[in-house]
Amino acid sequence: MLPQGVAIDSRTGIVSPSTTVYEKRLSEFRGVYSDTAALDALIASKGDLVTYTVSERKDPGTDIFFGTTVMQPGRVGEEYFMTRGHFHARRDRGEIYYTQSGEGLLLLQSRDGEIRTVEMKPGVCASIPPDWGHRSINTGTEPLVFVWCCNQDAGHDYAEIATRGMRQLVVQRGGMTAYVANPKYEA
Amino acid sequence: MLPQGVAIDSRTGIVSPSTTVYEKRLSEFRGVYSDTAALDALIASKGDLVTYTVSERKDPGTDIFFGTTVMQPGRVGEEYFMTRGHFHARRDRGEIYYTQSGEGLLLLQSRDGEIRTVEMKPGVCASIPPDWGHRSINTGTEPLVFVWCCNQDAGHDYAEIATRGMRQLVVQRGGMTAYVANPKYEA
Repeated sequence: MLPQGVAIDSRTGIVSPSTTVYEKRLSEFRGVYSDTAALDALIASKGDLVTYTVSERKDPGTDIFFGTTVMQPGRVGEEYFMTRGHFHARRDRGEIYYTQSGEGLLLLQSRDGEIRTVEMKPGVCASIPPDWGHRSINTGTEPLVFVWCCNQDAGHDYAEIATRGMRQLVVQRGGMTAYVANPKYEA
Repeated sequence: MLPQGVAIDSRTGIVSPSTTVYEKRLSEFRGVYSDTAALDALIASKGDLVTYTVSERKDPGTDIFFGTTVMQPGRVGEEYFMTRGHFHARRDRGEIYYTQSGEGLLLLQSRDGEIRTVEMKPGVCASIPPDWGHRSINTGTEPLVFVWCCNQDAGHDYAEIATRGMRQLVVQRGGMTAYVANPKYEA
């Protein structure tokens, strides 16, 4: 690769030029959100909405890469729109999430089920240690945009979180953001 | 380490909490700027100014780390204030420079002397390939603030650039930014 400048729009999260862009839609999250009836109702009424978009800049011949995630505001029942959540395949690889706009929560979980959160707001750079699962959640009313950076060989392990979710759910109740135990996790 | 949020001020470059902060002053750049008489005159008239400040957030137990560099505006003779410039000790380690405010140039040089530049302006994420020396230069009138991220084991090799500098100098002539051959490099 040669040195290059890649423009990041802190409002839209557009990475130009990017190497890969993918979108995640509501229908891909059956079993991820706890309220499946609410998910089906939302798809029936609003269509199969894109909840988040990931834009990557990954160049051959270097170790690290970066990109953006743009998480739309919204909820499925009580639960805010969120990413699937993942551990890295390599247990020695961390990651950095640098919030550009919007507001949200980074929900983290260690392999033994310890939960931590980091507030996501413009200017906060969240440091995700190796072997902590992580999920970003838009608790605001605007798109949540963050730049992430990690080693290209970190890889993804979605299985752990896909099976029973994370220990806590982040929900809106009575107009407030609340953490509640995830019954599926404890089962 | 545990997950954490670190605040970055995009105007001042302050990282809070940081783990290390260091400043570089004019007197440390004798032999780096081409015009030694101008350097001495500047120190005599303005004092031993801080030209840049590096704030790091480096946590044990993870692979990558990040921080900011704040480069003040100014010149030594024709040459703009700039970093020393370095290669990484590990030749397989790249780096990312994400400009937050100000304007400048990232000057890059391969081991065989090829020169490239990337414009530094807010929103531009510069990808520095492994084994390319790099120096940041403030060509504007405000502080140049950027966030950098790389592997903790990348290391620094300052010797290559300290010996004869980079192939080109970035200077202000007639109110314009110009690239000129570095006579010391070619000697």
